[in-house]
Amino acid sequence: MVTKINHVAIVTADLEQGKKFWVDALGLNLQNIEDVPEQEVRIAMLPVGDSRIELLEPTTDNSGVARYLRKRGPGLHHICLEVEDIEASLQDLRQAGIELIDESPRPGPEGKLLAFVHPRSTGGVLVELYQLPPKSTTS
Amino acid sequence: MVTKINHVAIVTADLEQGKKFWVDALGLNLQNIEDVPEQEVRIAMLPVGDSRIELLEPTTDNSGVARYLRKRGPGLHHICLEVEDIEASLQDLRQAGIELIDESPRPGPEGKLLAFVHPRSTGGVLVELYQLPPKSTTS
Repeated sequence: MVTKINHVAIVTADLEQGKKFWVDALGLNLQNIEDVPEQEVRIAMLPVGDSRIELLEPTTDNSGVARYLRKRGPGLHHICLEVEDIEASLQDLRQAGIELIDESPRPGPEGKLLAFVHPRSTGGVLVELYQLPPKSTTS
Repeated sequence: MVTKINHVAIVTADLEQGKKFWVDALGLNLQNIEDVPEQEVRIAMLPVGDSRIELLEPTTDNSGVARYLRKRGPGLHHICLEVEDIEASLQDLRQAGIELIDESPRPGPEGKLLAFVHPRSTGGVLVELYQLPPKSTTS
């Protein structure tokens, strides 16, 4: 049911600073920078092969990402896995006794459905699940 | 020069416990478990699309992974990126003022060359670089 790693998210206090390593030194391409007000972050998207690295900069002091940055410092934040059927995945996880942050999928950007799984149930890793919208078969 | 995410590594006190989420609940396949005495870890490899998740269990009390687990708890540990030419990548990083853990590539399993970049220079992320061995052109 899991098909790939969609992205690995890294929290940084400052996207410009974060880009110095990933873009300027390592040579990744900066695809775009997006403001995501509902998550109180700005995101820099850096494609890598079939996945991407996302740099997250909190834009307020109170979001989960801002609190994580204060508590743990900058670094790896979460991993996002693509699944074929997110409702079925959440159902399987619930049946296995896994604690979900989102009991139902939430609409995300560009028609995605997403849900977070609680790190208490995953061995300390914040896991995001993505179901992509069906690809259009007409042009 | 970076071609893909080879793996995302997650540290756990106990592979059996770690597998409960990733394999039993989420449904990833366990490809194999490897003892890597030189890094003082056991590794469970879980392919995901074109990449994999690696669960790391320290097998001694004094390795970097064991100290990380004591200090930060279980969770995301490092990200490994494949590069075409690891010597050239290390040279580029050095020229950009990035601090390397391995100044020269080390031989890894199955003919790989690997090197770690210091989290002080990456915004808090331990980054591993891999150069795969050239594919044989004869069968």
